[in-house]
Amino acid sequence: MNFVTFSTAADATPRLGAVADGSVVTLPGDMVALCASGADGLAAAAKLASSAPLADRYPMDHVKLLPVVPRPGKIICMGLNYADHAAEGGNARPDYPSFFMRGPSSMTAHGAPIKRPRASTKLDFEAELAVVIGKTVRHLTPTGALEAVAGYACFNDATLRDYQRKTAQWTIGKNFDATGAFGPWLVPASKLPPGAAGLSIESRLNGVVMQSSNTGQMLFPVVETLCLITEAMTLEPGDVVIMGTPAGVGYARTPPVWMKAGDTVEVEIEGIGILSNRIEDDA
Amino acid sequence: MNFVTFSTAADATPRLGAVADGSVVTLPGDMVALCASGADGLAAAAKLASSAPLADRYPMDHVKLLPVVPRPGKIICMGLNYADHAAEGGNARPDYPSFFMRGPSSMTAHGAPIKRPRASTKLDFEAELAVVIGKTVRHLTPTGALEAVAGYACFNDATLRDYQRKTAQWTIGKNFDATGAFGPWLVPASKLPPGAAGLSIESRLNGVVMQSSNTGQMLFPVVETLCLITEAMTLEPGDVVIMGTPAGVGYARTPPVWMKAGDTVEVEIEGIGILSNRIEDDA
Repeated sequence: MNFVTFSTAADATPRLGAVADGSVVTLPGDMVALCASGADGLAAAAKLASSAPLADRYPMDHVKLLPVVPRPGKIICMGLNYADHAAEGGNARPDYPSFFMRGPSSMTAHGAPIKRPRASTKLDFEAELAVVIGKTVRHLTPTGALEAVAGYACFNDATLRDYQRKTAQWTIGKNFDATGAFGPWLVPASKLPPGAAGLSIESRLNGVVMQSSNTGQMLFPVVETLCLITEAMTLEPGDVVIMGTPAGVGYARTPPVWMKAGDTVEVEIEGIGILSNRIEDDA
Repeated sequence: MNFVTFSTAADATPRLGAVADGSVVTLPGDMVALCASGADGLAAAAKLASSAPLADRYPMDHVKLLPVVPRPGKIICMGLNYADHAAEGGNARPDYPSFFMRGPSSMTAHGAPIKRPRASTKLDFEAELAVVIGKTVRHLTPTGALEAVAGYACFNDATLRDYQRKTAQWTIGKNFDATGAFGPWLVPASKLPPGAAGLSIESRLNGVVMQSSNTGQMLFPVVETLCLITEAMTLEPGDVVIMGTPAGVGYARTPPVWMKAGDTVEVEIEGIGILSNRIEDDA
């Protein structure tokens, strides 16, 4: 069973839900607490959802999904983590990952718009795997590192390319409001191969395949990445690690492809689902 | 009156306090709510603290200070924002600021240790001005931009220089646990010159002056910085903007100076106060 954060037309309060038979079932607590409850907690939540009374169920199209974790403590992103994408930007294969961060204000949900800002038209897509942390951990080693992972989701690390390159630091181009799409749901780690390896990952713009690769092509897979991050810092439940994007992004095409109002962009990862967003101009 | 987030030996819950006559007076709410209450709210909180009963007062040395805002939504930092510091690192005067982010797990408080990690000995100091946001704002213009600022504090943006330079992205070297010291307190914006301009800023290592400059030397002052950030993203109450450091950091010295266990590092900003931290090896 997969898990969402959602609100309804009648109540804007973010709520935790489980997705069952095309319905969303309300659960107590929030996504961070669910992630922190471990594999047993996720299984218990799924069991609770299966026996929920009809009154606690909403048809999927009656709810408004929110970013899977609405206010993560940290959103740590990786650049150049697929060899083909590093090459298309003229970058050498790195010895160490390029980490940067997003803030919560940069996020948007499945079915909500990705906003093209006033300041730039160079809005590009990046299909990525999101890793959601379920434990407080530091100094992870490869053995047991995956026990820190609660689950996985799709992420579209949409980027304003001109702002990304204003200086050597990419951060500003990655932090425009409502550009980082995070959804549609959390898939428990137990439902996917270890480290979500070997899964096809694809982006489509208006139905046309733009990126098509496999999570097995990552230069720094999930286990190695979590070990490197926790060499520096503590990861906490609800923290999110975004694993980088494969080749095929818009800026590297001839001519470049930029997303504009009315476009639909999708990120699909095998075994996780489809994250879909329309592009809207920011008012 | 200045404001702190603190806990006590008897109660680890973070609480809001006001500093009056060497005592900390407990206030209702938390630092984010206080910042969001505006200049009138800060004045009302000061008035409330002045009339607090003795039972609500703790001697300053009986409380444990916490980072001024313990869990900011965003901590946005600037690099190379003083001409002399850009020059000492061999960087040209920039046309646009270098922004990066810290996560909450990287912070530490006044009087708490800055941790030298297992992974590196290249721990450097950076005296900085912290700007604490009090409003939800986007697309600020110079007129009125400072109305978004609740107050100011000192920040030590301590950095692992080798990790900062592992790739072009500085983020990992700026996010080791307990390296970003934030304190001692929030000074309301009304008590300082507009944009906290024209204030002397200094760092001292074991009592020896290492950096000595003036906030008037910033290449991008507070107003311009807030306008540039909100071109991209919404700033929210409790968000923190760290304004970069002047010349004199350890790595640019001959020979380089690195902080080690037992050292004491201080950041002092005129009109704000002294942020003091001992260095400890991370266990």
